[in-house]
Amino acid sequence: MTAAEIPAAILAEIPGPIDPPHRLLMGPGPVDAYPSVLRAMSARLVGQYDPFMTEAMTQTQALWRHVWSTTSPACVLVDGTSRAGIEAALVSLIRPGDRVLVPIFGRFGHLLAEIAERAMAEVHTIETPWGQVFAPSAIEEAVVRVRPTLLALVQGDTSTTMLQPLAEIGEICERHGVLFYSDATASLGGNPFEADAWGLDAATAGLQKCLGGPSGSAPLMLSERAVEVVRGRKRIEAGIREAGDPQSADFVRSNYFDLGMILDYWGPRRLNHHTEATSMLYAARECARVIALEGRQAVIDRHALAGAAMLAGVAATGLTVFGDVAHKMSNVVAVEIPDGVPGDLARAAMLTDFGIEIGTSFGPLHGRVWRIGTMGYNARRDAVLTTLAALEVVLRRYGVAVPPGAGVEAAAALYSDGGPGDGAAG
Amino acid sequence: MTAAEIPAAILAEIPGPIDPPHRLLMGPGPVDAYPSVLRAMSARLVGQYDPFMTEAMTQTQALWRHVWSTTSPACVLVDGTSRAGIEAALVSLIRPGDRVLVPIFGRFGHLLAEIAERAMAEVHTIETPWGQVFAPSAIEEAVVRVRPTLLALVQGDTSTTMLQPLAEIGEICERHGVLFYSDATASLGGNPFEADAWGLDAATAGLQKCLGGPSGSAPLMLSERAVEVVRGRKRIEAGIREAGDPQSADFVRSNYFDLGMILDYWGPRRLNHHTEATSMLYAARECARVIALEGRQAVIDRHALAGAAMLAGVAATGLTVFGDVAHKMSNVVAVEIPDGVPGDLARAAMLTDFGIEIGTSFGPLHGRVWRIGTMGYNARRDAVLTTLAALEVVLRRYGVAVPPGAGVEAAAALYSDGGPGDGAAG
Repeated sequence: MTAAEIPAAILAEIPGPIDPPHRLLMGPGPVDAYPSVLRAMSARLVGQYDPFMTEAMTQTQALWRHVWSTTSPACVLVDGTSRAGIEAALVSLIRPGDRVLVPIFGRFGHLLAEIAERAMAEVHTIETPWGQVFAPSAIEEAVVRVRPTLLALVQGDTSTTMLQPLAEIGEICERHGVLFYSDATASLGGNPFEADAWGLDAATAGLQKCLGGPSGSAPLMLSERAVEVVRGRKRIEAGIREAGDPQSADFVRSNYFDLGMILDYWGPRRLNHHTEATSMLYAARECARVIALEGRQAVIDRHALAGAAMLAGVAATGLTVFGDVAHKMSNVVAVEIPDGVPGDLARAAMLTDFGIEIGTSFGPLHGRVWRIGTMGYNARRDAVLTTLAALEVVLRRYGVAVPPGAGVEAAAALYSDGGPGDGAAG
Repeated sequence: MTAAEIPAAILAEIPGPIDPPHRLLMGPGPVDAYPSVLRAMSARLVGQYDPFMTEAMTQTQALWRHVWSTTSPACVLVDGTSRAGIEAALVSLIRPGDRVLVPIFGRFGHLLAEIAERAMAEVHTIETPWGQVFAPSAIEEAVVRVRPTLLALVQGDTSTTMLQPLAEIGEICERHGVLFYSDATASLGGNPFEADAWGLDAATAGLQKCLGGPSGSAPLMLSERAVEVVRGRKRIEAGIREAGDPQSADFVRSNYFDLGMILDYWGPRRLNHHTEATSMLYAARECARVIALEGRQAVIDRHALAGAAMLAGVAATGLTVFGDVAHKMSNVVAVEIPDGVPGDLARAAMLTDFGIEIGTSFGPLHGRVWRIGTMGYNARRDAVLTTLAALEVVLRRYGVAVPPGAGVEAAAALYSDGGPGDGAAG
C-alpha cells in the first residue's frame, strides 16, 4: 500500500446520508425535537457579526429571559451540552479553595460535586436517599455549618425523577450571603422555574429535555450579583487585548467557560471569543419561541397533564412507581421492573417492535427501574397512550398479568375533558 | 404589574421563525455550509444509546480518521466550538506546572498560549512577525532551550492567512520527547494535513472553515502516545463509578474536557459522560462524508484552485496581498485596504448591495487588511468571480482606479481548462 492509498484504506466504505429510523423517544431525554426546531436547524448560516446574527442573538436572549423568568440581561448560551453550562457556571463562580455546598439527591448532584472538585473547590455534600428531596431546613442547617460561598443544587434529577423545591432556597442563601446556583437541565420548561422570584444567582439547562431540542446548547442565566463576581475575574485574550483592558490575576481556569468573556461576546461590545454555533443558536431560539407561542404556563400544564396521565397509566398497568411521588418531576416517572422481567430485553423489544425508547437507570437504581419520560414535543396524549399500549404488550410477553387496556384507559381518562394541554404545537 | 404578568413583559414581542437573509460568506469563516450538511442537521433525533446512534458515532469516527489521515482509533468530536477542542486537548495533555512551548505567528497562537496558561502550564513562546511562519530550525532551537513536555502549534492562522509547515515538526518532537499538538481549525480540509505521517500526537479543528459545516463541533484526534497520557489521568464520576474503577489523583481540571472520559464515551464501554449533541454529530459526519465522496485530495485541489483564482483576481484588481504568499493557506487571502477607502463601510456595502461577506481583521492588522476566504462549499468558481465583480464595483465607488473586469477575468483564466475542481459537490 502506498502512502497515497492509506486514507482510502482507513475508510473502509463511505456510508450513506444520515437517515435515522422512526423513534418515539419516551426516555429521560434526549427526546424528539419539535418539528419547527428541526426546521430551524437547517436554516442557512450567516456571518458571526452579520446584523441578522447579532439580532438573532439578542432575540434569543429575550426569549430565554422569558423561559428563565428573569429580567437579568445576563442570559446567554454556552456552546456545548448541558454539562458545559454547569461547568461554565461553576468554574466562573468558584475560586480555587472556595467552599461549595452540594446537596445530593441523585446522579447529577454527584456531577455538580465532581465539577466543583475539579474547579479546586473545597466541596461539602449532604445526601438524601435516592427517591427523596431535601427540606429547606436541612439545606439551611448545612449552609450554616459549612458557610459556603456557593450552594449548587440540582432542580430535577432524572436519575431519581425527583424535583427539589427551590422556592425557599434563595431566601436562605440571601440570608447567609451565599451564591445560589441550580442545574435545571431536566426540569426547565416542564416544571415551574422562577429565577428572579426564587433568588437564583445562576442557572443552566440544556435543550434535550422539556425544551424539545437537540443536545448541544446550554442556556445560562446569571443574576446581577453573579455578573459582578465573574466580571471581577475578567481577562482579555492577548490576541485582541487593547491598552487599558483590565486583567485579573484571579482568572477563571478555563478560557472556553469564562463567563466574563462570554458575556462580553453577547454584550454590546461583541468582543470576539468563540465563533457562535449558529445552527444550535437557531435551535435554542426556536425552543424558547415554541414556549412563548404556546404560553409558558400552558407548556408547564401540558407537561403536568402528560405526566399525570403516564403516572395513572403505569399504575393501572400494575407497575410500582419509584420514589416520593409528591416530589416527582412532571416529565419523567420511574417504575420498578416487575420480578422476572429482563429489563434490558424488554426495553429492546419496545424499541424493535414499536420504535419506542424508554430509559434504563444509573447507580443504585440500575436494573431496578425503568424511566419513562413525557417531555417537550412528546408531552402529548398520543405519545402517552401509544407508549402504554406497547408496554402492556411487552410486559405480557414476559408473563406479567396486565389488565388489558387498563393503562391506556386510565391515562386517556385524564384527557377526557378534551381541554387545553392535550397536544403540542410545533 | 402582577407577578404572573412579568414573563410576558420580559418578552416584548415574539419574533418570527428564523429566516436568514441570503448571504455568500467569503470571509475567513464561518462560511456557508454544504447544502447536504444543512439537510443532515434537520434529521430526526434518536436516543443516546440507540443502535443507530452508536453506529452513526462509529461511522463518524471512521470518516474523520480519513480526514485526519490517521489510523488512530482515538478520533472523536468535542461538543463545542473549535476552541472547545483546543481546550480539551490542552487541559487533558498538560499537567499544572508543565512547560509548554507555543510558537506564535498570529492571533490563534496567542489563544493557545492563553489556554495553556489557564491550564496552569509554564508557557514559553517564540514569535515571528505577522505574515510569516517559522523555519523548523527555529522551532527545534526553542524546543532544545525550553525542553517542554508539549509543543502547541497552529497550522493555519486566519488572522494572518499563514500556513505553518508541519511536515518536519513531528520528527523534531519525537527526537526530543515532546508531545506535538496542532490546531488545524482554519486549514483542515483545504490544505494537506497528515496526522500520522507528520507525527501529530493531537490535533483539533472546527467545522466552520474548509469543512463546510456550522460552528459547534470540534473534531479531535489523539495518537497512541497521547491516549496513554490522558488515560493516566483518568477519573470516573461518582454517580456512575463502579468498584475497582481507577481514580487518578492527577486529574484533569475539567470534567467536560477530560478526554479520558470522552474516549470512554466514544469507546466500546460507551460510558456515560455528556449527552452527545446529535444534530452536530450529524453535521460533522456529513462534512467528512462530503470530503470522502469528492475525494480528499480533490477537495484540497479545489481549495488550491479557488485560492489561486482569488489571489490572481485581487492582484489584477490592483490590490496588494499581505504576507508571505509562498506560505499562505489556500483558503484565505489578506489584501491591504487601499488608501482612502473606509474599510468597514466598504465591507458593509459588499454585504448590503451584494449579500457578500468579506472579513475584517484583528490586532496589528485591524483596519489595514480585509480577509477574503474561499472555503468549503464556497471554494467555487462562481463564488470567486461574483466576489471579485462586487469588490470591483465597491472599490470604484471609493475612487480606486480599478481596471474594469480585470480581477474577474484573471480569476476565470485559472478555471479556463474546465477541468476538475471547478465546483463543489453537496
